Amino acid sequence: MTTPTQRLADLGLTLPQPAAPVASYRPAVEHNGMLTVSGQLPFLDGELVTGRMGEAELARGQAAARACGLMLLAQVRAAAGSLDRVAQVIRLGVFVSSTADFIDQALVANGASDLMEQVFGQAGRHARAAVGVPVLPLGALVEVDALFALHPADA
Amino acid sequence: MTTPTQRLADLGLTLPQPAAPVASYRPAVEHNGMLTVSGQLPFLDGELVTGRMGEAELARGQAAARACGLMLLAQVRAAAGSLDRVAQVIRLGVFVSSTADFIDQALVANGASDLMEQVFGQAGRHARAAVGVPVLPLGALVEVDALFALHPADA
Amino acid sequence: MTTPTQRLADLGLTLPQPAAPVASYRPAVEHNGMLTVSGQLPFLDGELVTGRMGEAELARGQAAARACGLMLLAQVRAAAGSLDRVAQVIRLGVFVSSTADFIDQALVANGASDLMEQVFGQAGRHARAAVGVPVLPLGALVEVDALFALHPADA
Repeated sequence: MTTPTQRLADLGLTLPQPAAPVASYRPAVEHNGMLTVSGQLPFLDGELVTGRMGEAELARGQAAARACGLMLLAQVRAAAGSLDRVAQVIRLGVFVSSTADFIDQALVANGASDLMEQVFGQAGRHARAAVGVPVLPLGALVEVDALFALHPADA
Repeated sequence: MTTPTQRLADLGLTLPQPAAPVASYRPAVEHNGMLTVSGQLPFLDGELVTGRMGEAELARGQAAARACGLMLLAQVRAAAGSLDRVAQVIRLGVFVSSTADFIDQALVANGASDLMEQVFGQAGRHARAAVGVPVLPLGALVEVDALFALHPADA
Repeated sequence: MTTPTQRLADLGLTLPQPAAPVASYRPAVEHNGMLTVSGQLPFLDGELVTGRMGEAELARGQAAARACGLMLLAQVRAAAGSLDRVAQVIRLGVFVSSTADFIDQALVANGASDLMEQVFGQAGRHARAAVGVPVLPLGALVEVDALFALHPADA
């Protein structure tokens, strides 16, 4: 059985440097076997992806959501020590900066959801809420937060 | 003492067919006695309720929120086997598609909240956040996600 | 070691009367050592702070977020009996009513985040998601919900 760490390598993915919080909070909090990860913004080649769906192409939104997902994984690895401690991806919260007539938030969010399944397999299949918002911090195109269940650190 | 399943019948309510996810995720994830349910959209007579509060009538928004609640219950029954495993409705997250000057999101959200109390009694009284959003997936009028505490499956 | 209750007094802060729910739900639900608190609106001198960032001054937004934080603490004290039962602030969800070009939601949200660190110290440093929304219940400028881990009641 391959581990999430191996799958990440098999996919040819490397995680970004975990982003420092934009403000006075923590990127992730572990409590009682659950890891709550703060909302992550999308970086591609080190640049924040800004804009609004309805104006941006669908593929760009999906790439941005996937980039949020990679940053979530970077935060998990930094906080939990290894992706291999993830027992289950419980939930993603996906906020898509949207014009008033863009209604494909689910397709955008799949950029993050598909990544979780690719990396964690069955344990990566999660509950999700995806909604449109008028604007996100720093003008980001997508923001995703998450809840993970962890195996004990000594497992 | 009546069970939630009995109360549902007493209210003359039947649950809809649980909606398949619009995308690559799961409708609900059970972990450690908690059931996290994905954001559900409102269906009335099998049709998605679309639009935006401020343009739609309040009663339609409340019916839509109630329909989201019925779909949440359908997902709970499908995932947990029975509504009677619900120990407590912990939280509803209510997203109301709203024009910039519609400020009665709480009244809309009551459509879902009241249903929980009708079906689960005291155990149905939950914490809640209700906010306005500019647009929802597929143009839905309301989206509601939820967290439930469950009794063990063999209880 | 000072307690959160003492720190609150040292900061010269008094908690507001916990707001009654605007609607049919509970301000907070305790289950299994976790306290889920409903979205709280900002009151200053007993008046709801309304408006939209991009039109309101940044300082007003931060004061509103802090006021939401104080109301969260009032709900914790009412539900848990004492702020000193808080073991960890797990997560804040911050919704900022925003014009389409306001992108400093993180700075607004710090009004609530900084309060948590002032009152709970290291245990107050939490995960967070901050997003823009077009409108909030009753026209509020900010809404914040939260998840707290609690010590047992007899601890």
